Amino acid sequence: MIETVAYLGPQGTFTHEAAMTLFPEPATELVAYPSIPDVLTAVDRGVSDIAVVPVENAIEGSVNSTLDWLVHHVDVPIIGELVYPITHCLLVHPLQAKCEKAEFTRIYSHPQAIAQCQLYLRKEHPGAELVYTESTAKAAEIIHKNPDHPWLAIGTGRAAELNELYILKKEIQDHPNNYTRFIAAGKQKKVWNQSTDLFKTSLQVTLPSDYPGALYQVLAAFSWRKINLCHIESRPTKTGLGNYYFLIDTEFPDEHVLMQGAVAEIEALGCQVRILGSYPCFNKKRMKTVIER
Amino acid sequence: MIETVAYLGPQGTFTHEAAMTLFPEPATELVAYPSIPDVLTAVDRGVSDIAVVPVENAIEGSVNSTLDWLVHHVDVPIIGELVYPITHCLLVHPLQAKCEKAEFTRIYSHPQAIAQCQLYLRKEHPGAELVYTESTAKAAEIIHKNPDHPWLAIGTGRAAELNELYILKKEIQDHPNNYTRFIAAGKQKKVWNQSTDLFKTSLQVTLPSDYPGALYQVLAAFSWRKINLCHIESRPTKTGLGNYYFLIDTEFPDEHVLMQGAVAEIEALGCQVRILGSYPCFNKKRMKTVIER
Repeated sequence: MIETVAYLGPQGTFTHEAAMTLFPEPATELVAYPSIPDVLTAVDRGVSDIAVVPVENAIEGSVNSTLDWLVHHVDVPIIGELVYPITHCLLVHPLQAKCEKAEFTRIYSHPQAIAQCQLYLRKEHPGAELVYTESTAKAAEIIHKNPDHPWLAIGTGRAAELNELYILKKEIQDHPNNYTRFIAAGKQKKVWNQSTDLFKTSLQVTLPSDYPGALYQVLAAFSWRKINLCHIESRPTKTGLGNYYFLIDTEFPDEHVLMQGAVAEIEALGCQVRILGSYPCFNKKRMKTVIER
Repeated sequence: MIETVAYLGPQGTFTHEAAMTLFPEPATELVAYPSIPDVLTAVDRGVSDIAVVPVENAIEGSVNSTLDWLVHHVDVPIIGELVYPITHCLLVHPLQAKCEKAEFTRIYSHPQAIAQCQLYLRKEHPGAELVYTESTAKAAEIIHKNPDHPWLAIGTGRAAELNELYILKKEIQDHPNNYTRFIAAGKQKKVWNQSTDLFKTSLQVTLPSDYPGALYQVLAAFSWRKINLCHIESRPTKTGLGNYYFLIDTEFPDEHVLMQGAVAEIEALGCQVRILGSYPCFNKKRMKTVIER
């Protein structure tokens, strides 16, 4: 049976590219959903097998939305991670391509894409109105449908192709090392064809009460075992002010004896530990020879 | 001379309410700016005295944008914090108020407001298209200007007043204890009229290199002094993958001898420490008798 992969759409976004990279067709069937909750709920209810959503430095969605839904609303473990390089293009309709810079009155894009090009936009187009869209693909579509307006979009090179737009300028993002982390999540453990040296385990740790040094004790369990942490974040539990849990990413698989010891020790301290997933991490730059597109 | 306060506009947003709460007119002059970078840059360049922007669980702007600009682009210390309760209303044009639920085809609001009402929207209006706007105030304005369409907006009660809309339903946010933390930032230390028991110091700590247990050593400096941490977050430095710094909020003023000792110890470990601000924290719920509006 062909696996179905739900991803945050529409077509032509970075999430779509990430989904195609991890799950090349025709071995899988990719299905676009309009929001992160929709993607994760589809997998939670068994409508799709695997979800692909952005989780850090996201373009088409909010990190918070992904983490919130994984923690609070669904029971879908993380089964893989993909680091994907992000470059933004400034897109224009061919009929408007001759305009002077100052003549462009509006720039459309997803809020995260606009945020990642703030310095460029403030320098080159300080007078243009910035208008938010649900996705970078939608922004390109708006430019396509409004050939008579001196408007621009921030989007992917592929979105330019799909919508017959000119690329006015490439790589307009403020930071050259821009990337987005995407996760794949699903109820079944996945056997990956690609190889990697990096494995992660993501944990949600809730402390018994808020007292000085509580987090320090938790980290001690990792530290003396030399388990490296690659991400840590305190987040509100939403039951009120001052109540936090921690999201911790470690560079160890969960079946490792040291990892199991760390979790047991943290639970013995009175903390709740939930494993959000233990999974291999891939990097698009190192995958090129493995996956032909 | 009257102080000028730059805030993330437009009028009728939660940030506007927070700015009015911390800096009541006519003692100060409030000036709306269209983006978080614009607000902070205005203060950095001396155009305004004080900035008011959201920093956590924000409605009209991204947390990441505020933290990024404070860390990377401006030199403006945090001088105060305000915790402000957030409730969302579902707004409708009077001419459309008799529509059945299923007849509403679109719901406009800021992405964060939509995110905070996800469960409600998915349950009550699963078929409606969700359309992003730059602010909740803008969403209300769109409904005001389109009386012939069966559209809704998520916004404040004040936005309903300003735009002559009906409140179809109050408190539609998914979590009852919803709040936003706002910060005031400025080049001058502020003498506050209001009193509070809570003081915070925000630190940016950059580790000398990525090795297991580095964060643990940093936290040890706080732990044995019983300095409570109220927020911790690792964030990419934007120079590439795997390079992180930490944002740490402590519940201690920076002039306290224990706080100074902790900072000296962390620097002795080879870390870079930058104090982003040391400031009193106010809570809107406990301020009502102090500030008359």
